Amino acid sequence: MTLLIISGSSREHSNSEYFAEKAAATYQGEVKWIRLRELTIHQIHDQRHDSNGFDPVDDDHAEVVKAMLDADEVLFVTPLYWYGMSGYMKTFIDRWSQAMRQPELNFKERIAGKPGSLITCGGDQVDLKGLPLILQFKHIFDFTGMDFKKYFIGEARKPGDAEKSNRLNQLEGFFN
Amino acid sequence: MTLLIISGSSREHSNSEYFAEKAAATYQGEVKWIRLRELTIHQIHDQRHDSNGFDPVDDDHAEVVKAMLDADEVLFVTPLYWYGMSGYMKTFIDRWSQAMRQPELNFKERIAGKPGSLITCGGDQVDLKGLPLILQFKHIFDFTGMDFKKYFIGEARKPGDAEKSNRLNQLEGFFN
Amino acid sequence: MTLLIISGSSREHSNSEYFAEKAAATYQGEVKWIRLRELTIHQIHDQRHDSNGFDPVDDDHAEVVKAMLDADEVLFVTPLYWYGMSGYMKTFIDRWSQAMRQPELNFKERIAGKPGSLITCGGDQVDLKGLPLILQFKHIFDFTGMDFKKYFIGEARKPGDAEKSNRLNQLEGFFN
Amino acid sequence: MTLLIISGSSREHSNSEYFAEKAAATYQGEVKWIRLRELTIHQIHDQRHDSNGFDPVDDDHAEVVKAMLDADEVLFVTPLYWYGMSGYMKTFIDRWSQAMRQPELNFKERIAGKPGSLITCGGDQVDLKGLPLILQFKHIFDFTGMDFKKYFIGEARKPGDAEKSNRLNQLEGFFN
Repeated sequence: MTLLIISGSSREHSNSEYFAEKAAATYQGEVKWIRLRELTIHQIHDQRHDSNGFDPVDDDHAEVVKAMLDADEVLFVTPLYWYGMSGYMKTFIDRWSQAMRQPELNFKERIAGKPGSLITCGGDQVDLKGLPLILQFKHIFDFTGMDFKKYFIGEARKPGDAEKSNRLNQLEGFFN
Repeated sequence: MTLLIISGSSREHSNSEYFAEKAAATYQGEVKWIRLRELTIHQIHDQRHDSNGFDPVDDDHAEVVKAMLDADEVLFVTPLYWYGMSGYMKTFIDRWSQAMRQPELNFKERIAGKPGSLITCGGDQVDLKGLPLILQFKHIFDFTGMDFKKYFIGEARKPGDAEKSNRLNQLEGFFN
Repeated sequence: MTLLIISGSSREHSNSEYFAEKAAATYQGEVKWIRLRELTIHQIHDQRHDSNGFDPVDDDHAEVVKAMLDADEVLFVTPLYWYGMSGYMKTFIDRWSQAMRQPELNFKERIAGKPGSLITCGGDQVDLKGLPLILQFKHIFDFTGMDFKKYFIGEARKPGDAEKSNRLNQLEGFFN
Repeated sequence: MTLLIISGSSREHSNSEYFAEKAAATYQGEVKWIRLRELTIHQIHDQRHDSNGFDPVDDDHAEVVKAMLDADEVLFVTPLYWYGMSGYMKTFIDRWSQAMRQPELNFKERIAGKPGSLITCGGDQVDLKGLPLILQFKHIFDFTGMDFKKYFIGEARKPGDAEKSNRLNQLEGFFN
């Protein structure tokens, strides 16, 4: 069994990733990480209705999608930037609209039913200001047919805050 | 009086932009457009807590921010991609966290109180599935102190649908 | 074809009901009204797990449910009180949990697939502050299997404001 | 210091109340309970704009309001009925619009700044389906000027489930 963690954090050792590590420690199986900041992923060009469909894009997107489809379970990790997922994560997800139309990826069939979770982290009234992100991911999971298992909203302002968080006990048994 | 329209559409002549044109036709003053797809804007690297702050980034972000701060009113236009703003728009807004820390931009003082509106467009149950985006922008406007005047959710599936929309009458007097 | 309007307004000639009348004028068929304030409906006593189930309640609830199940289409009308439906409406809907367990009503089978709409009206930033209500009704419709066709959020502060509303054009063709 | 717990549960020994007891055990001070099901509270009749204002209502509402205004802190407890607060709770809160206009209660001044929390409990995907309620209470707290300190969403289907909940550790230190 494999868990793929896809991180949209923009900095090393982010608080979001710290929380994700704690959650992942409860996963019974192999854990893989993809950090989007280390890859090149271009913005989507919406060509859904072009007669020739989407132009091929030369970047790392397909590789991440393949890893996601190969995994048994996916954990999306993103800091709460401006009350939503980071631009890294959004840019990645926007391109799913293209990946869904690449027959060789078999995107729709392979993502349907896959368990997915979400970890985010913000600095101010996160339990309230993080809710639009949760609602958005609910729609994303519903559309793809993924099974939205769980989410965790962390609170941290400065680098290192996650380690001192009083919410760490919520991550015990995250994947059990 | 100047209205700046900042568009996060990824294709020319998008439905979102069509709705924005109709809304803008009711504005009493000059209307300027910035289409983010025509510019280069990099993802943020969160260095808020680095001792030296953010590294300078060589792209078009500051130019868009300056135009936004110079305008009397701003209209954000984005297709509804995956139940949120487009990656173009999100990448742009994420970088506000950097712009707020560039003293020469005087970001916080100049954006506070500025009227802002939002036009989005989606294809399926948009009045429900667009709500996370509206809730997110509410937080964005609140944080910056912008005055969230109005939003419009358009419905369109294919290129050209906006022109035939039965919601166009909701745009009459949008800026009055 | 019959449209049943169930109103949770607490006063005569409310703004919400005015908007509902305008919407109903576009319905092709018979229009019936039920005003909950004119009836007696008690709060639910949750006895779902009692061995004998729910005690019978002597009030007007079953009558309203029957009318709702008999109608081809239902329009729920409620003022926006404290960012949600009125107590009249909530008290009525809470009791559905009891009605669903009264075999003679055949509630679940008869409500599934029925088209439903919602009209509300508030006084302050209604397009934002009314959203929790919309999200709640989305869940209500989903749970019952009703088809959430449309909603309208009116803005009015004082009695009579609805008649002067600049949103009346959004009600043209509401049921077409 | 006094904590007032206002419960909108409709049955004795409800799961919501169990969670509230656990939270209250962490409060440093006196804890008082009001269970709305044991009182008589009538629906509001919106007479805000009547020349003579609201007619007096002979029920227990003012008594609960006084206890709320006397308390140092308030915990609202409600089962998640139909993705919102119970009719008991909603009927109570609706009447605040009347209480705010009774000069002898001094409602607005005395509620502003008061810390408030929320505990709810539902049975199915509560972390998602409870969100409209959280968003609604955010608006309620904002309007009154209360300080929304914390919320907890419990999961329980049958009587007694709360005692076995794996979320009880989230209530440790709820009021610390």
